[in-house]
Amino acid sequence: MTRHFRVLIDCKDEKGLVYKISKAFCDFGLNVEKNREYVDAQNGKFFMRSEVSGQFDPIALEAELKVVLPEKARIRLVEPRPKKVVLMATKESHCLGDILIRHEAGELEAQIVGVISNYETLRSLVEKFDIPYVCVSHEGLQRAEHEEKILEEIGKFGEIDYIVLAKYMRILTPEFVAHFDERIINIHHSFLPAFIGANPYKQAYDRGVKIIGATAHFVNNNLDEGPIIAQDVIPVTHAMDWQAMQSAGRDVEKIVLAKALKLALEDKIFVYANKTVIFD
Amino acid sequence: MTRHFRVLIDCKDEKGLVYKISKAFCDFGLNVEKNREYVDAQNGKFFMRSEVSGQFDPIALEAELKVVLPEKARIRLVEPRPKKVVLMATKESHCLGDILIRHEAGELEAQIVGVISNYETLRSLVEKFDIPYVCVSHEGLQRAEHEEKILEEIGKFGEIDYIVLAKYMRILTPEFVAHFDERIINIHHSFLPAFIGANPYKQAYDRGVKIIGATAHFVNNNLDEGPIIAQDVIPVTHAMDWQAMQSAGRDVEKIVLAKALKLALEDKIFVYANKTVIFD
Amino acid sequence: MTRHFRVLIDCKDEKGLVYKISKAFCDFGLNVEKNREYVDAQNGKFFMRSEVSGQFDPIALEAELKVVLPEKARIRLVEPRPKKVVLMATKESHCLGDILIRHEAGELEAQIVGVISNYETLRSLVEKFDIPYVCVSHEGLQRAEHEEKILEEIGKFGEIDYIVLAKYMRILTPEFVAHFDERIINIHHSFLPAFIGANPYKQAYDRGVKIIGATAHFVNNNLDEGPIIAQDVIPVTHAMDWQAMQSAGRDVEKIVLAKALKLALEDKIFVYANKTVIFD
Amino acid sequence: MTRHFRVLIDCKDEKGLVYKISKAFCDFGLNVEKNREYVDAQNGKFFMRSEVSGQFDPIALEAELKVVLPEKARIRLVEPRPKKVVLMATKESHCLGDILIRHEAGELEAQIVGVISNYETLRSLVEKFDIPYVCVSHEGLQRAEHEEKILEEIGKFGEIDYIVLAKYMRILTPEFVAHFDERIINIHHSFLPAFIGANPYKQAYDRGVKIIGATAHFVNNNLDEGPIIAQDVIPVTHAMDWQAMQSAGRDVEKIVLAKALKLALEDKIFVYANKTVIFD
Repeated sequence: MTRHFRVLIDCKDEKGLVYKISKAFCDFGLNVEKNREYVDAQNGKFFMRSEVSGQFDPIALEAELKVVLPEKARIRLVEPRPKKVVLMATKESHCLGDILIRHEAGELEAQIVGVISNYETLRSLVEKFDIPYVCVSHEGLQRAEHEEKILEEIGKFGEIDYIVLAKYMRILTPEFVAHFDERIINIHHSFLPAFIGANPYKQAYDRGVKIIGATAHFVNNNLDEGPIIAQDVIPVTHAMDWQAMQSAGRDVEKIVLAKALKLALEDKIFVYANKTVIFD
Repeated sequence: MTRHFRVLIDCKDEKGLVYKISKAFCDFGLNVEKNREYVDAQNGKFFMRSEVSGQFDPIALEAELKVVLPEKARIRLVEPRPKKVVLMATKESHCLGDILIRHEAGELEAQIVGVISNYETLRSLVEKFDIPYVCVSHEGLQRAEHEEKILEEIGKFGEIDYIVLAKYMRILTPEFVAHFDERIINIHHSFLPAFIGANPYKQAYDRGVKIIGATAHFVNNNLDEGPIIAQDVIPVTHAMDWQAMQSAGRDVEKIVLAKALKLALEDKIFVYANKTVIFD
Repeated sequence: MTRHFRVLIDCKDEKGLVYKISKAFCDFGLNVEKNREYVDAQNGKFFMRSEVSGQFDPIALEAELKVVLPEKARIRLVEPRPKKVVLMATKESHCLGDILIRHEAGELEAQIVGVISNYETLRSLVEKFDIPYVCVSHEGLQRAEHEEKILEEIGKFGEIDYIVLAKYMRILTPEFVAHFDERIINIHHSFLPAFIGANPYKQAYDRGVKIIGATAHFVNNNLDEGPIIAQDVIPVTHAMDWQAMQSAGRDVEKIVLAKALKLALEDKIFVYANKTVIFD
Repeated sequence: MTRHFRVLIDCKDEKGLVYKISKAFCDFGLNVEKNREYVDAQNGKFFMRSEVSGQFDPIALEAELKVVLPEKARIRLVEPRPKKVVLMATKESHCLGDILIRHEAGELEAQIVGVISNYETLRSLVEKFDIPYVCVSHEGLQRAEHEEKILEEIGKFGEIDYIVLAKYMRILTPEFVAHFDERIINIHHSFLPAFIGANPYKQAYDRGVKIIGATAHFVNNNLDEGPIIAQDVIPVTHAMDWQAMQSAGRDVEKIVLAKALKLALEDKIFVYANKTVIFD
């Protein structure tokens, strides 16, 4: 039986890595369909992503790669399959709705197992798509209590791959984030690092910028400072107040978030030094 | 004799302004070739730029407008003519060279009266175009002394309209800037307000952004915080180190600076609340 | 009672039009909230769009404008209200779904009265949103018969304002189009006029372009040759086959179509000489 | 002595190519600084570009690669050096001037050996940069005679690498082009394949497009139909007549042409099936 795998390797750089890896692929009789590599010469780091297929034992290949690659090399063999994704949102529907439509159309290599929100607002939209909607209100709860409840609800979905914050408007604590290292994707409604924090459109309007943007990034301990996955921008003019900018910005937000999500689902992102290497 | 004027008006907003202004134009028998207006409803401000032509007395028109417009209205009648521009630069040639080529081609409504630099590096380039090059070295001088010398050199060019900082890499003091209110245009090599200050490309690289940009703005007392005139961006990837970003960024810098300069030369910019209204 | 109107005027250009119109607005005691005008000097045409409010009789205003404007001036006073829209689609869901989500979120000044398709494919998606779905199969029908059936179904929705072809993949005859002059909006999946006709992504791939795009336009008698409302593009590379281009192009298609639809719903488009004047 | 080479390989695709090539690099003790490959699966074609360095005999490496690669593999070992370039222009200076400024700044891996024009217009600009300017007027000459004269002048510059048509406004015959296969780079002032032929800005204006562009391509026998290297676009509005579009388009033209030229100078382009594979 022919199997398809994505082979993801990152390790310290040294001479002959491509040779050693491609030799292993050869020895296992693999077809290499795609190959991307990147050397960060300054920091002596090597990254490679290959799409391979063949009749082979992935465990044996992984073992072989471990033998030929430098110590501490990170080697991942990933078989393409719909990844399990939980969406989180608050009240705005544009990012959430966009992902639901893409999911429905089979555009995403994902199974959306549920949506968690701190409001009831989006229930009717989500349930149209027969996706479980869980409202975990934060009213009257300490932040820690609220997050514990959310964790509990996420737990009910079983082992999940990614959490997508599709305009979830509450800050997550480092404790929460620690459960999902490099697995929470957020959309921030500005061209980071400009306009960190609350109401970036208002900030952009006040500063009088001529371009606004959106940034999809992994969430880490520091608000809006995680590794950036994708960004895009649109022009604005003096004639737009901040509400008009917000309205125009929605399209960028949803496109950028969907782009980042796809990259994650297709295993095209390496995270390194709070930055991303993207093999798109 | 038919005369062409740009009429620039900004004042507090009230009912019937367009009517009053267009009536004045009518009464003076003017042809209105272009008309742009903008009302900032939130702040109750009115802006209008008209291109008019006719056989008329501009002083009488200005007087008439003063009568019909609200108190403290700012009214400017500008006859199109090459504006006098001084360029300032340090060592990099891409922005400077681009302006010189455009000037040579007659693309700019400007007369470049001279270039001032704190190095000799660009003399040979500038003198190819028969434009005076003045080197005012900052070596061994206090900042105030240095700026005084520059002011002296600028003074020799007579009354000037604009100073363009075409990659002039020294900070100007508020005292210097005060001489040229809303008349100094700078190009900052980042998408402001991201990456204020030194080496924005290094900052952008370290942050791992996926887009870089450039910002042309008027210079005020606070470094990189003046009213933004124009911005543009280009995509970058993980595979670019900061030198590669810098190199790619040069094209955006020169295009954005030229765009801002043209807007200024054609009297298409209103400055207001540290922002710009652009009638392009 | 204060009423809000959009006043749309196009007529041959002559001196003093803005004066005459703004005088009428003044005489009727109107507040002018927004004003945009454009003169096509080459062809002697004048266009103006104003947003006005006040306690006034719109019929009297229209009569007054008729008196002061040149003969054959086209004057429209439009009161903002949700316009009635029929969507047509075939099998692809990205444009249709995007409009449905926007509609659901209240982002569009529209009431979507129904969706007509020549297949059953999209029924389940549309009915999630409680919008009538009518399948009019073309199987076994002459083109004229098929269109007659569609016309009949559209007729059941009452008087409609716009038809949006959200990836409706059949060509409409001039006879059909004639029923809805300047009221059918189509999305073409290329940067027109490049790649007119079938499978533009395949054409783009074969030609080896480095950018692909999408075009929203009014439909007239000639396929893909109607007045263009909006266009946008994205970069592509040699590494993308035409299916990858098609997939990447979907995002541009839906954004461009939504943009055009909004312009139409907000009465911001003038059609003239097979082109559009857009006051966005 | 350490030598740097770019290794360019294209051949029919088969299993193990990367392995064989990287093994050869390994056996020769090479450092692989950069590696890009692309497989056109549909057509069974393999492309690879590597930047390697080491103390080695390039002739021996080439021989070894010939042994391990499929028959008819095209193997090029290119040592980075300033390539010899002839510019051709007519009357417009923006593209020409831009290249001259970049050349002067050391931004291009090129030696510009001369400029050939059919007019005297640009002589003064070119000679500022101490570059030979040859005017070969077409007045009173048959096309064949004119081109023969140009060929003769080019011949005087010795062996050249590229001809750049920096707004050379005459059509070149297949006979002329045949002398410089894949070595003539042209800038066309439209987003090809839209608006082939004369005055594309006028065509774009007449069609009412909302975006215009520029295309840099290799010249082959058919006007504007050669392999596309780079394209870019800018938005336009109804308010721009074709002269305004032309003026705005100049910036895109010069940036796109410079981008294509750099790709060529850095050996980053493969031509194949009238398309380009770009390893940027």
